[in-house]
Amino acid sequence: MTAPGAGASGEDDLIARYFRPLATDPGAFGLVDDAALLKSSGDDLVVTTDAIVEGVHFLPDDPPGTIARKALRVNLSDLAAKGAAPAGFVLTLALREAKDEWLAPFARALGEDASAFGCPVLGGDTVSTPGPLMISITAFGRVPPGKMVRRAGARPGDRIAVTGTVGDAALGLRVLKGKIAGEGLDTSAREFLIQRYRVPQPRSALALAIRDHANAAMDVSDGLAGDLAKLCAASGVSAAIDLAAVPLSAAARVLVANRNADIETVVSGGDDYEVLCTVPENRWESFAAAARHANVDITSIGKVEAGTAAPRFLDATGQPITLKRLSYSHF
Amino acid sequence: MTAPGAGASGEDDLIARYFRPLATDPGAFGLVDDAALLKSSGDDLVVTTDAIVEGVHFLPDDPPGTIARKALRVNLSDLAAKGAAPAGFVLTLALREAKDEWLAPFARALGEDASAFGCPVLGGDTVSTPGPLMISITAFGRVPPGKMVRRAGARPGDRIAVTGTVGDAALGLRVLKGKIAGEGLDTSAREFLIQRYRVPQPRSALALAIRDHANAAMDVSDGLAGDLAKLCAASGVSAAIDLAAVPLSAAARVLVANRNADIETVVSGGDDYEVLCTVPENRWESFAAAARHANVDITSIGKVEAGTAAPRFLDATGQPITLKRLSYSHF
Repeated sequence: MTAPGAGASGEDDLIARYFRPLATDPGAFGLVDDAALLKSSGDDLVVTTDAIVEGVHFLPDDPPGTIARKALRVNLSDLAAKGAAPAGFVLTLALREAKDEWLAPFARALGEDASAFGCPVLGGDTVSTPGPLMISITAFGRVPPGKMVRRAGARPGDRIAVTGTVGDAALGLRVLKGKIAGEGLDTSAREFLIQRYRVPQPRSALALAIRDHANAAMDVSDGLAGDLAKLCAASGVSAAIDLAAVPLSAAARVLVANRNADIETVVSGGDDYEVLCTVPENRWESFAAAARHANVDITSIGKVEAGTAAPRFLDATGQPITLKRLSYSHF
Repeated sequence: MTAPGAGASGEDDLIARYFRPLATDPGAFGLVDDAALLKSSGDDLVVTTDAIVEGVHFLPDDPPGTIARKALRVNLSDLAAKGAAPAGFVLTLALREAKDEWLAPFARALGEDASAFGCPVLGGDTVSTPGPLMISITAFGRVPPGKMVRRAGARPGDRIAVTGTVGDAALGLRVLKGKIAGEGLDTSAREFLIQRYRVPQPRSALALAIRDHANAAMDVSDGLAGDLAKLCAASGVSAAIDLAAVPLSAAARVLVANRNADIETVVSGGDDYEVLCTVPENRWESFAAAARHANVDITSIGKVEAGTAAPRFLDATGQPITLKRLSYSHF
C-alpha cells in the first residue's frame, strides 16, 4: 500500500485519501513504503489472518462501516483467544470499484475500531476485482515469550468456558435472509441479532485473563460444536457439554422456545467470535474474578474428559444429543 | 487455517491435505491453531502484503504452479528490496471450488518456493468466493533493529540501480493476450517473456547487499517510471534516468527495435519485481562486488538529483522524453 508521489495513480489516490489518515503508527511509514515495520520488543508475535467475503461473511447491502468492523474484529477475536495484545494489522481490499460513498464510511469505521482496540493499520494492498468484495486482514499481537495460549493444552478435568452468548450471529443472518419469520421477536430483539452477525465483539478485554489462567483457548468462528471438537482434537482429549448451560441471549431463547430455531443453528451456526477456553479447576475462581474485572461474561458449560472420543452434548437429563452438523464449512 | 479434528469440514480437509504438509515450521503449529507464532529474535520484523487476482495479475488458464509461485514471489520481492531475510508467510486463498487438479500443483509449487526461499507457510485462511480466484499473502522478514531499507533515504548524487531487466513481464502479458504479434521473436523468446510475467524472480540473494549499501530501495511492481517517482517523492529528491541504460532483455530489445513495443510499455508496464535502489557513489564498487557475489545483475541507470521535480527520462542525446503514463493502476 503506497500513497502518491509524482507517479500517483487512482489506487494511490484512494489509499492516500482514505487510509493514510489511519496510518498513525510510525511502523506504517504513512503508507509510503513497500513494507511496514514491527519493531523488536522482546515479545513473541502472534499472527492471525481471516478474510471476509461479500455474500458469505457479510451481505451486499450491509453498511460499509459494519463490514470494516467485522473484517478487523474477527482477527482481534483470534488475538484475544491467544492471550495476545493487539500490535497492528495489514489489509488486502479487493474492490469492484472505488466509490467514495462506500470507502469513506468503511475507512472511518476501520479507523475508529483500530483506535478503540489499539490495533493500528500498518499497510496493505488494494486490488480491483470483477467479483465480490473481499477484505483479508492479517493482524499481529504480542505475548511474552512462550506465552501464546494454544488450542492444544486442554487437560482432563478442566472446566470449559465460553464468553458472551452463542448462536446470535447465525440467527441474525437467518433473520436478515428472511429465513426466520421471527414470531415473538420485537424490533429491538431482531436488531440485536442482526447486529451480532454484522459486528462481532472481540473479547480483547479478556486476553490477559486467558493468558494467565487458561490451558487452551480458541475463538468460536465456525460454530461452538465444531470448534470444540477441533480444540479437543488438538489437545488429545474429549469433553462433555451441558447443553442447557450454553449461554443464549434473550432473543435466541425466544426463537428456540418458539421452535423458530433449532439447537443445531445455535451451537453449529458460526460467526460467534466468542472465546472458548479450558481452565483448570483450581484457577477457575481467579479466572472468573478476572473476567468480572474485565467486564466480560463467561459461562462454564462443561468439562474436559480423558480420551479421544468426539465431545458429547448432553441434554437436561444427561442424555447425549446427536447434532446433525457441527460447523459451517466453505466447501 | 485449521486442520481437521473430529469437527472436520470440507475446508479443514482441504487444508489438511494440501497445506499441512507445507507447515513444517514450529510456529505454524501444523495449522491446527487459530494463529501462528513468530518467536522473538531481537530483530525488527518487516511486514509486506500483496494480493494477486485472476484476470488482473494472472490469467485464468495460467498453470496453478506458476500462480502459486507468483503469489509468494511478489512478496519475497518486497522483502528483498527492504533488505530483509524471509521469516515466513500467511496466505488467504479465495476459491470458487476445491478441485484436486488445481490445488495439488498449486500447493506443491508453493511448498517448493517456500523451501527454496526459506520462507515457510505459517497459516492462512481459505474462503469460498463466487468471483475470481484471489491469493493474498502477507510475508514477514527479519532485519537487525533499525536496518530496514526504506523508500525515503535517497540522497542527491546517489547512483540509481535496477536489478535484472525491465519490461519483460508487461511484454509477456501482451504476448499472452495476443496483443503483440511477436514478429522476429522465436519461440524461446516468447516463452521467456511469458515466464517473466508468470514467475517473477525475487532478488532475495541481493537483500544483504541492499541493506549494507543502499540509501533507499523498493521493488518495481507498477512500472519503473512510476515507482521511481514514488521513491523520489518519499525521499524528497528528483532523478535523471538515462533511458538507453535501462537494462532490456534480448527479447524486449527485439520488440522495441521492431516497433512491436514502445518504451512506455517497457518502463511503465509493471510486474517486473526487480529491485530499484539508490547507492552512494562511494559505496558503488562495494555494492557491485556484492551483487556479483550474489549472482544478481545490476545496472546503473541514472542519478538522484536535488529538488522535487518529477524524475526525468533522457534519450541518447540527453533530451527529456515525455512518458504518456508512468505506471499500472487498478482504478
